[in-house]
Amino acid sequence: MPRPSVREEIVEAALKTLHQRGFNATGVQDITEAAGVPKGSFYNHFESKEALGLVALERYWEGALRSLEVLKNADMAPIARLRSYFRGLNELARKLKYRPGCMIGNLSIEMTDQSPAMREHLAAILAKWSRAIELCVKEAQADGSIRRDLDAKTIGAFLLNSWEGAVLRSKVDRNDASFEAFEKIVFGSLTP
Amino acid sequence: MPRPSVREEIVEAALKTLHQRGFNATGVQDITEAAGVPKGSFYNHFESKEALGLVALERYWEGALRSLEVLKNADMAPIARLRSYFRGLNELARKLKYRPGCMIGNLSIEMTDQSPAMREHLAAILAKWSRAIELCVKEAQADGSIRRDLDAKTIGAFLLNSWEGAVLRSKVDRNDASFEAFEKIVFGSLTP
Repeated sequence: MPRPSVREEIVEAALKTLHQRGFNATGVQDITEAAGVPKGSFYNHFESKEALGLVALERYWEGALRSLEVLKNADMAPIARLRSYFRGLNELARKLKYRPGCMIGNLSIEMTDQSPAMREHLAAILAKWSRAIELCVKEAQADGSIRRDLDAKTIGAFLLNSWEGAVLRSKVDRNDASFEAFEKIVFGSLTP
Repeated sequence: MPRPSVREEIVEAALKTLHQRGFNATGVQDITEAAGVPKGSFYNHFESKEALGLVALERYWEGALRSLEVLKNADMAPIARLRSYFRGLNELARKLKYRPGCMIGNLSIEMTDQSPAMREHLAAILAKWSRAIELCVKEAQADGSIRRDLDAKTIGAFLLNSWEGAVLRSKVDRNDASFEAFEKIVFGSLTP
C-alpha cells in the first residue's frame, strides 16, 4: 500500500504549482519535482493530472470555506462582515503580489472547455460560494444596510463574479486598483 | 520573401485556436494545422508562439474596438449605449455557447505570470477599454442617468472588471445567469 504521506505531498505540491502556473503549463513532472517524490510514484496515487487537479481544487476550496466563516459571524453587523470578507481576500491577493490570483477563477477560465469533470466541480463550488454571500446579503437587507429593491440571490452571484473579475484585473495591473474600485462601487451603490 | 497570405492564415488560425483552447494547451503545430500550412513555415513569420500570441491578441482587440463604437453613438442616450454595448457582448457569448469566453480575460488569467510582454499589452488594452466605458459613463452622469456620487473612472473600471467576471462565470455555468445578474445589479444600482 502506498505511503499516505507521498500522496499528501503530491496534493500539496499540486495545490501550489497549479495555482501559480495554471493547469496546462504544469506537467506531472513539475508536480512530483515540487513534491520531492519520484515521478513514478505519481500514478500509484492518481490516475491522471486531471484527477489530481480535482483533488487540489477541492483542497483549495476547503481553505476558501474557512475564510467564508466570517460571513456568519453574529458578533458583527452583516454589512461589516461583507466588507471584512472582501477586504481579507484583497489582502491575501496583495500578499501574493497579485500573481497567482484565485485558483477557482483560474481553472474556470482555463479548464471548463477541456474537462467536463472540472467544470461540474467548479459549478458546484461557485454555487455554494454565491449562496454563502447571498445569505449574508439577506441579513444585511433585513437590517436595512443593503437596499431591498434588488434580490439577495442576484446580488450574491454578482458580488462573487465581480470579485473574480477584480482578481483577474489585479493579475494584469499588479495593484490594488480593481479591489478598491470593487469596494467603492459595491458598497457605494448597494447601500441605501 | 514569404507569401503574406501564409502569415495571415497563421494569425487567423491562432486567433481562433488560442481563443478557444488557451495559450498553453495549444501547440505551434495545432495552429499550423488549423491554418493548413506546413509547420516549418511558422518560423518564417514568427519568432515564437508568444510573438504570434501578441499579434493574435492585437487582432482580437481590433474586433473589440469595433464593438466599442456604439459607446460613442450620439444618436442614442448614453445609458442606452451602455446597455446596448453590454447586451451585445452577452449575445456574442451566447452565440459561442459561453465556451471560449473573452480572449483578453483568458490571457489575463493564463499568461500574466508567464509572459511580461503579454502582461504589458493586456494592461494597455484594459486601460483603453476602461477609458472608453468611462467616457460614456461620464456622459450618462452629465444627463443624470447615472448617479454622480461615484466617479466615472472608477465606475468604468468596475464595469469592465465585473463584466470579465460575468464572462468567467458563464464559462462554468454555460448560461446567461451571470450576464443577467450583471445587467440587473449594475443598471439597478448605478442609476439614481
